[in-house]
Amino acid sequence: MPAKWTIGIDIGRTNLRAARVEGGVPVKVLRERTDVPGGPRGVVEQVRSAVDELSEGEQAGGLGVGIAGQCDILRGLVRYGPNLWWPDVPFGEMLSSATGLPAVLRNDVTMATFGEWRFGAGAGSTDMVCFYVGTGIGGGAIIGGHLLEGASGCGGHLGHISVQMDGPMCSCGRRGCVEAYAGGANLAARVRQELADDPTISTALRAAGDLDLIDARTVAGAAVDGDTYALEVRDGMAEALSSAVASTINSLNPTVVVLGGPVMSGFPSLFEMVADRSLELCLRSALDGLRIERPSLGDLAGVVGAATLAIR
Amino acid sequence: MPAKWTIGIDIGRTNLRAARVEGGVPVKVLRERTDVPGGPRGVVEQVRSAVDELSEGEQAGGLGVGIAGQCDILRGLVRYGPNLWWPDVPFGEMLSSATGLPAVLRNDVTMATFGEWRFGAGAGSTDMVCFYVGTGIGGGAIIGGHLLEGASGCGGHLGHISVQMDGPMCSCGRRGCVEAYAGGANLAARVRQELADDPTISTALRAAGDLDLIDARTVAGAAVDGDTYALEVRDGMAEALSSAVASTINSLNPTVVVLGGPVMSGFPSLFEMVADRSLELCLRSALDGLRIERPSLGDLAGVVGAATLAIR
Repeated sequence: MPAKWTIGIDIGRTNLRAARVEGGVPVKVLRERTDVPGGPRGVVEQVRSAVDELSEGEQAGGLGVGIAGQCDILRGLVRYGPNLWWPDVPFGEMLSSATGLPAVLRNDVTMATFGEWRFGAGAGSTDMVCFYVGTGIGGGAIIGGHLLEGASGCGGHLGHISVQMDGPMCSCGRRGCVEAYAGGANLAARVRQELADDPTISTALRAAGDLDLIDARTVAGAAVDGDTYALEVRDGMAEALSSAVASTINSLNPTVVVLGGPVMSGFPSLFEMVADRSLELCLRSALDGLRIERPSLGDLAGVVGAATLAIR
Repeated sequence: MPAKWTIGIDIGRTNLRAARVEGGVPVKVLRERTDVPGGPRGVVEQVRSAVDELSEGEQAGGLGVGIAGQCDILRGLVRYGPNLWWPDVPFGEMLSSATGLPAVLRNDVTMATFGEWRFGAGAGSTDMVCFYVGTGIGGGAIIGGHLLEGASGCGGHLGHISVQMDGPMCSCGRRGCVEAYAGGANLAARVRQELADDPTISTALRAAGDLDLIDARTVAGAAVDGDTYALEVRDGMAEALSSAVASTINSLNPTVVVLGGPVMSGFPSLFEMVADRSLELCLRSALDGLRIERPSLGDLAGVVGAATLAIR
């Protein structure tokens, strides 16, 4: 009989989290920096070592792994991802062989969505949508009581909904993706460019010194301090995010929309602005029973979801 | 034991279709004008009479009804719809009581999507998306082998994906919906306005006489005849449609996208333009095994889908 506890791993661009999870509760958690320079082998070794430590000599009932990238679940590949881009590496197979456990591999936000659905903000619902706004924008959905996976496991890339056909170029190669407007990396790049181009923009951000060091956190901090320019940046993010959220509501008719991630929570009032504006924009018929929520599992949604999906 | 054949009804804004369907085949079909002036009672009477005629004294195994509007399947209501807007009428209950059959009520494009999936262009796939471009733009999806319905039956309103946050106003109240660009009613209104505003636009459309009579069919006809302005209108439709299709591919990772409807097929090369451009715009990881298809059940997809969904 397999153990009742399973292991969930969340491999982000900078942080790796691992947990032993029982009944949706992370009973032991490890956090470390992702060994990006070590490449896929380095990361697999990190996972092996974490599984070892969490198992305490016992055998886990399953292993789920979420990773920041576009996964091909049919072949266990990580096809595309800003830092973790190993298109031809059989990552799922490597994980399974290193740990001795069949690894269930998915996108990190897919895993977080599953966690929030089973044990978090979406518990009890049958139709739920998640947007996680961080360096990029990830998404996930539960549809009719099933996790959205897509034909090859790439479903849920809601950050690549274009909200403006002629908008700014996104890293994916098309224009106006909501990630191009409100993903941390893109918004910081735009702010750095605007400050460099226009010396009349007077802002606390410029006072900080080296423009090259400005990131989404710096911009959010300036907005918290009431900087006019940073607040305008936030307003633009809110409008783009609201458009993508409303389009997703119209497409999927969920009862719960979860808006999370460090960039979403870092800017003052951004969550409230997006929640209010999305409900204004979407179809009246989609409003029945609809609520917009913050995530409730914090940065452990991914490991809880991964560990729980591994039970199936 | 219930009969092996069921009845499917497709209630559009102008046409009502009814069919006796067995094993996905419409063995007997009725077509008439929708009795819009008769209101919900008039339409229910049309359905009753069609069921009567198709049943030939036998008892059908089920009744499925698709209707052009936003349905609340939990309560059997048609909440919103351009012509068929009966927000407080218990339409599903009225149908069941008039016909003596429990009526399965859904949006018309939801039904057409189900028909194309089970017996048409998407047969054999587990993840499929449909766009139907007519007076408005309707949508539907199959996700992981299940029909997308949404929490209250309003899922699949893909025409109300906004492709341009600051775009033209849509009838739903927000800006830049793909329906505002490429739905037949909206595009015809925009063409009439542009011709009225700008006498320098020289076009075959103006030659036809009364500008007020221009509809989507007239514009498509001018495009077929090579009218430069009408072809430009088509190009704009193609770009907006491609953006919505690509965003949906990124969100749902289907293997089949069906592009249908009279406006889609009426403009020369529109299908090919949207198919090619959507594949250019979407994420590389979503391309594996993805194909874009024309519908294969013609205007009977709705009745086939409705009759088939009624079997469940």
